[in-house]
Amino acid sequence: MDAPELDTFASDPLVQAVTAYVKVYMSNYDASHDWSHILRVVGLARHIYSRSENRADLDLRVIQLAALLHDIGDRKYTTPSSSPSPISSLLLAHGASPALAEEVQTICLSVSYSTEVKDPSHTLSVIAQHPELAVVQDADRLDAIGAIGLGRMFTFGGAKTGRGMDESMEHLDEKLLRLEGMAKTEVGRELMKERTERLRVFKRWWGEETGFAGGGEGSA
Amino acid sequence: MDAPELDTFASDPLVQAVTAYVKVYMSNYDASHDWSHILRVVGLARHIYSRSENRADLDLRVIQLAALLHDIGDRKYTTPSSSPSPISSLLLAHGASPALAEEVQTICLSVSYSTEVKDPSHTLSVIAQHPELAVVQDADRLDAIGAIGLGRMFTFGGAKTGRGMDESMEHLDEKLLRLEGMAKTEVGRELMKERTERLRVFKRWWGEETGFAGGGEGSA
Repeated sequence: MDAPELDTFASDPLVQAVTAYVKVYMSNYDASHDWSHILRVVGLARHIYSRSENRADLDLRVIQLAALLHDIGDRKYTTPSSSPSPISSLLLAHGASPALAEEVQTICLSVSYSTEVKDPSHTLSVIAQHPELAVVQDADRLDAIGAIGLGRMFTFGGAKTGRGMDESMEHLDEKLLRLEGMAKTEVGRELMKERTERLRVFKRWWGEETGFAGGGEGSA
Repeated sequence: MDAPELDTFASDPLVQAVTAYVKVYMSNYDASHDWSHILRVVGLARHIYSRSENRADLDLRVIQLAALLHDIGDRKYTTPSSSPSPISSLLLAHGASPALAEEVQTICLSVSYSTEVKDPSHTLSVIAQHPELAVVQDADRLDAIGAIGLGRMFTFGGAKTGRGMDESMEHLDEKLLRLEGMAKTEVGRELMKERTERLRVFKRWWGEETGFAGGGEGSA
């Protein structure tokens, strides 16, 4: 586990401006997608980066920016009529080069699980060009599983959809238990293995505990 | 674990009417306090009842009614200006005797954890008069811990308060980990022990997983 490296980008105006922007932006989201989520993804992405064998091919600044921005314009919180992803224009407005703005936006738009499921080869081709995607994607998915992932799953269910808890639990089989098999980095895979096992333990507990329901009238 | 005993009160018009009322009433709540919660509490209460040595002193119909009604008028979901608890009048309107209506309402109003913490001797004196309270209270608290309790805790946080997940986790030490020590029945205590251990395991996972945050700028 890394000690916080608060100074790495302390004198980088672009990273500082993006950090301030995202912190305000995420305050409009519920606790399943808040500033703490971003901080954890940034921390996990840097943890994976620092232990990656292909670190020489990775640009930490791109990882930092993509980890910060990966949930901006997330489709779970925007309507189809919303404007296109604002990531590139935001970066350009704060002085990023067109190439950097384009690269970070491309990575952010490819983080999504559903995008990958729809077209896995697209995700792989983006990773071939921008290996930083693998790092940010594994970091984001690590935060979707384990104890934190469970907390986020129920928080999202309560805040956003009004869905029942059993419906939230279906999310385990539909998505969360599949993420380990889609890991792109060695470090990410190792951490996902442990957190996926936690999901399985929790699911077993859940089955045992819900088994007591049904002693009442009208439970049919 | 009991098989559902759907027929116990199948020809009891009062229980049937109350069941129908509660089912509609709970549909206004979020998934942390919904009809599934009531069904689990009813199931747990009947499980505890069926294994209680003092079963001869317990009235299963009172347990069933109190388990069904224990969240009606819950202060988490009502404003201080709301009318007093509607439990007694509801029961009277459906043909309960004044004594039964009064008894079930007394039990329901004494289930609450915060009521007990404020005045533990009051709770004990109600249990001395109405031992069914011990059964319903343990059942309700069992549904507040373990995997289901964790799911309800985060769901409530997302739905109702907009609180952060770390704030939700403080709820473990503030309340959930204390419930086992307040168990009133042997069967309840045994089940609480296992579910409390699950809370501790989850808390350890949470600590490990949140330890990765902080690698970003602005995390101070």
